[in-house]
This record gives sequence, C-alpha cells and structure tokens, in this order.
Amino acid sequence: MNNSLSQRTINRLVQYHTILRDYNKKEIVNITSAQISQLLGIDETQVRKDVKLINCKGKCKVGYNVNELKTIIEDVLDYKTTKRAFVIGSGNLGIALSKYSKFSEFGLEIVALFDTDKDKVGKTVDNKTIYNLSDIKEKIKEYNVNIAILTIPNKVAQEVTDLIIESGIKYIWNFAPTILSVPENIQVWHENLIGSFLQFCAISKIK
Amino acid sequence: MNNSLSQRTINRLVQYHTILRDYNKKEIVNITSAQISQLLGIDETQVRKDVKLINCKGKCKVGYNVNELKTIIEDVLDYKTTKRAFVIGSGNLGIALSKYSKFSEFGLEIVALFDTDKDKVGKTVDNKTIYNLSDIKEKIKEYNVNIAILTIPNKVAQEVTDLIIESGIKYIWNFAPTILSVPENIQVWHENLIGSFLQFCAISKIK
Repeated sequence: MNNSLSQRTINRLVQYHTILRDYNKKEIVNITSAQISQLLGIDETQVRKDVKLINCKGKCKVGYNVNELKTIIEDVLDYKTTKRAFVIGSGNLGIALSKYSKFSEFGLEIVALFDTDKDKVGKTVDNKTIYNLSDIKEKIKEYNVNIAILTIPNKVAQEVTDLIIESGIKYIWNFAPTILSVPENIQVWHENLIGSFLQFCAISKIK
Repeated sequence: MNNSLSQRTINRLVQYHTILRDYNKKEIVNITSAQISQLLGIDETQVRKDVKLINCKGKCKVGYNVNELKTIIEDVLDYKTTKRAFVIGSGNLGIALSKYSKFSEFGLEIVALFDTDKDKVGKTVDNKTIYNLSDIKEKIKEYNVNIAILTIPNKVAQEVTDLIIESGIKYIWNFAPTILSVPENIQVWHENLIGSFLQFCAISKIK
C-alpha cells in the first residue's frame, strides 16, 4: 500500500476501480476522465489528478486503457496481499459482512466468526465456523489472524475489545457505534455508518 | 444542515458527538480538545478548528461544556429533522440496518422493507413490514417516503434502481458495490465498505 495517498484519494481510487471492473466486464477498452467524473458526480480535473498521482498515462481524446488503469490501482492499493480476519459477533451485520463476497477480491479473507451465544456457536456461515468467543486466543494462533471486525452491541464493546487485544488481535475494524479505548500499539478504524448517512444528507440536501 | 461543512468535517463532528454522548452518560461536565484528539487519534488543533467552525467556545484549561457542544453539533447536523426511508432488500445487511437503533437518534427512521422473495414478503423486522417490491409505488405515497437504502445484489441493482426512481424515490443510499446510473435530479450516495476497509489498511499499515 502506498502510504502517501490521502484517505479521500484512496476512496476515489476504489470507486474508479468499481467502474473499471464494470467496463472490463463489458469489454470496453478505453475510458475517459470525463466518463469517470460523470458517473461519480465529481470534478473531471480531480480524476485526472488522481490518475496522474498513480503514474497512469492516458492518450489524448482516447482516454485511459481500462485494464491498465485497473491493474495499477490494484497494485497501488495492495489488493493482492491476503489479509485474514475474524468477525466478532454473528448478528445480522456480522453475517452480512462474512457473506460479502466482494471483500476477497480486495484481499480481505474472513476466516471465522465468534459469538457468546451457545445457540450460534458451532454453526457455519458460508463455510466459516462460529466459535465461542472464549476460544479466541487459541483460534488466533490456529488461523494466524491479527485483524478483528467488531459487530457487537455497544454495551459489551469495550469488554470484548480488551479480551481480543489480550488474546493477540492487533487491528480492529469497529462497527459498534462507540469509541473504543485501546493501547497505543493497537490500531482501530471506527466505521461510521451514521457519519456516512449524515454526509449523504449533507450532499443530497434531502427535503 | 449547514451545507458549508466539508464531508470530512461532518464525519469528525459525528465522532465528537459519539464521545460527547458517552461523557454525558457518565455525567462528566467538561471535555478538552486534548481528550477528544487522543480518543480519536487525530490532531488537537484539528479538533479546536472544527469546534471553532461551529461557534462553540471553550474555557481555558477547562475545555468545552459537554452538553453545550453536543447540542450545537446536533443543531448543525440537523439531527432533529426526521427523514423517513425504505430499505430495499431484506437480506442480512438490510435487516441489520433496519435494526440499527442508533439511526433514529440521528433523524433517520426506517419505516418498511421491500423484497421480491415471496417467503419474506409479509414478515416483519422490528415491527417494520417487508412488502413486495412491486407495491413500492403505492407504499411511497402511503408512507410519504422519498429515501431508499439499497442492500441488493449487484446484478439486479440497476434494474431495481430504475423501478424505484420511476416510483418516486429521489434519494438513494446505495450499499450494493456497483455504480448506479441515475437521472440528474436523483441523488445517490455510494456507500463504500471496500473503500473503508482499504482506508483501514492504509492507516493501520497492517502487517
């Protein structure tokens, strides 16, 4: 992963990639910055700037080669390196994320789920076993995983976070709408569905 | 909603609000920019800048009044105005979003779900009925809704989008990982879980 890219640039590159994949499937060879900008409702100069930043060159009046730009984005964003993760919490959101097949295309492989509910433990979701949360320490070693995706209720979020960190988790993608307190050597990414919704409102000017 | 705020500022304000809610529950009266910045792992001057932008004043060495800052953020982000929405697709993600009680705190009220699966139509999720997608036009009138949250497979996403727009939907929050093509008067917000994951990787420098 190229660490010099800003979060917003990364986000746009991912959206360009979605379009390029669609074009690739339709066997369209070239795409212009104007086409990309129109589909995403963003400025054309922004698209050109981003593409230049990752050293992809277009041709005047022809645009970019779809396959080439797609591959460059995949390299820059390190799609090819597999990152194995556990989902903590096998409620609807945990199951939805575990079934979200697109993740694997981008290097994220969810290998197992965890829950404290005895009725759920032992069942599988898309061939991934739901384990008892109390077994996480040995499963971290068994599966060689250091990433956890948290989809648990707020009221147990901190307690569970403490447990999984103690067990060896280093990176947390948190979907619980609460801010977690963690040691300095642990990385947390707070997913913010509410924030996303409020951005949606702000951009859309909903009436 | 204050439309002069950038997307990133809005996103940070929502995160500040999450912290302020926690502090409020714990009956803590004041909070400093240093405390906020530490919890979120961002720069303290950024916090001060954001708070100044929404005209909240802190006191030297005491910080901000938790309740006051919380209320100002709620006003600025227009939490109090209810926005009624339909969820299209009653799979795990659709159900998870429908059950996500935090949304209502922020003005989003999911009032019903839609599906084409006859086994699901007629059932309820948290007292919200799952209707047949073919009935959406009359339900839009009945419920007075113009926002749709799309949680459907990619392969039917465009077709369903065309149908719901024709039926009267004006604003779409799209969770399907594909770019939708819509008329100019329709607003689409592409939720990007993959982009979020890749940002998580970039920030965390996962090894």
